[in-house]
Amino acid sequence: MEQEFASSLLEAAVNEFSRLPGIGRKTALRLVLYLLRQDAEQAHSLGEAIIKLRDGVRYCRVCHNISEHEVCEICSNPMRDRSVICVVENIKDVMVVENTRSHNGLYHVLGGLISPMDGIGPGDIEIDSLAARVAEGGVKEVILALSATMEGDTTAFYIFRRLASTGVKVSVIARGVQVGNEIEYTDELTLGRSIMNRTLFSDTFTAK
Amino acid sequence: MEQEFASSLLEAAVNEFSRLPGIGRKTALRLVLYLLRQDAEQAHSLGEAIIKLRDGVRYCRVCHNISEHEVCEICSNPMRDRSVICVVENIKDVMVVENTRSHNGLYHVLGGLISPMDGIGPGDIEIDSLAARVAEGGVKEVILALSATMEGDTTAFYIFRRLASTGVKVSVIARGVQVGNEIEYTDELTLGRSIMNRTLFSDTFTAK
Repeated sequence: MEQEFASSLLEAAVNEFSRLPGIGRKTALRLVLYLLRQDAEQAHSLGEAIIKLRDGVRYCRVCHNISEHEVCEICSNPMRDRSVICVVENIKDVMVVENTRSHNGLYHVLGGLISPMDGIGPGDIEIDSLAARVAEGGVKEVILALSATMEGDTTAFYIFRRLASTGVKVSVIARGVQVGNEIEYTDELTLGRSIMNRTLFSDTFTAK
Repeated sequence: MEQEFASSLLEAAVNEFSRLPGIGRKTALRLVLYLLRQDAEQAHSLGEAIIKLRDGVRYCRVCHNISEHEVCEICSNPMRDRSVICVVENIKDVMVVENTRSHNGLYHVLGGLISPMDGIGPGDIEIDSLAARVAEGGVKEVILALSATMEGDTTAFYIFRRLASTGVKVSVIARGVQVGNEIEYTDELTLGRSIMNRTLFSDTFTAK
């Protein structure tokens, strides 16, 4: 859609919005025209929030999660179990796991997955720092909560081998039929793994 | 979706993004995390473009279209036909009509439509300034390119009566079956009007 804008400011704003993922030029124009109709205050707070976000955000020195301080709230919380580390790909995954309320340990954010196709090797993500945390002692279990993709599996396997000599328990989150999904529509690989890794009915369905 | 954010900056940015139309909290979070992964430059240019847009944008003194100057490029273009004014609801409609390349006259942006339900009367939109432009002389035709809604029709009728005594020709854009649409799926009202306002085959399909 070729459009000639009557204002270079309008054009600049549309261009910037349409650089965001999932936002085409048409949506960008809609957002920009919306902002023009609102109070100046709204455009100001949005613009400033974006700038402050990128400039002000810090990452936890220990787990690399997004943080307000040098060490994040989870790492510095005395109520969390410091002997269990859940390894995730990115900060979004920390939120997702936190929302399940089924992990009370700490986290380690890799900041990516090993992907030879994209030129991302073990040295490009936070694996050394994970090994260092384990080497410090006190860690009993490392839970790998990575995507069920080739990159996730490659990364999990690499970390598993890397930590093998430390004696720490390395576990992976269960893969199986999604809660609410029908067997009929579950892919064969998932179903196969889910049969292989079957659990005792009493373990799964008995209230804890 | 209740989420606890590890950073108040993150939370502020998500809140601001999700005030935009069509952007929920999930999309807002996705955009914010995307910006965090990009160069700081991108967040800066987006944030600044939004602020500059709202602060810097001006509207043409003559037609009320968005403009860089006191009088917009269209109004000050000597190649445009100053005797024909196309009346539209908003600046987006100017772009839409411009894209058709079928109007070489000027515009008049009303900035809304008469809508008693929403408490918007003729005095709340730019009708007085339209009448003043016509009264100045030199205008032969006013084309009403308004939405085919009750508000659009009300506004068109009001303008038509308002300009009746001036002797200027007031026309409305044709309503009919959309190009590419099947008769079968066209609503009866549109189809009825389209039959009533039928044109000579030779006028419509002969290349000009």
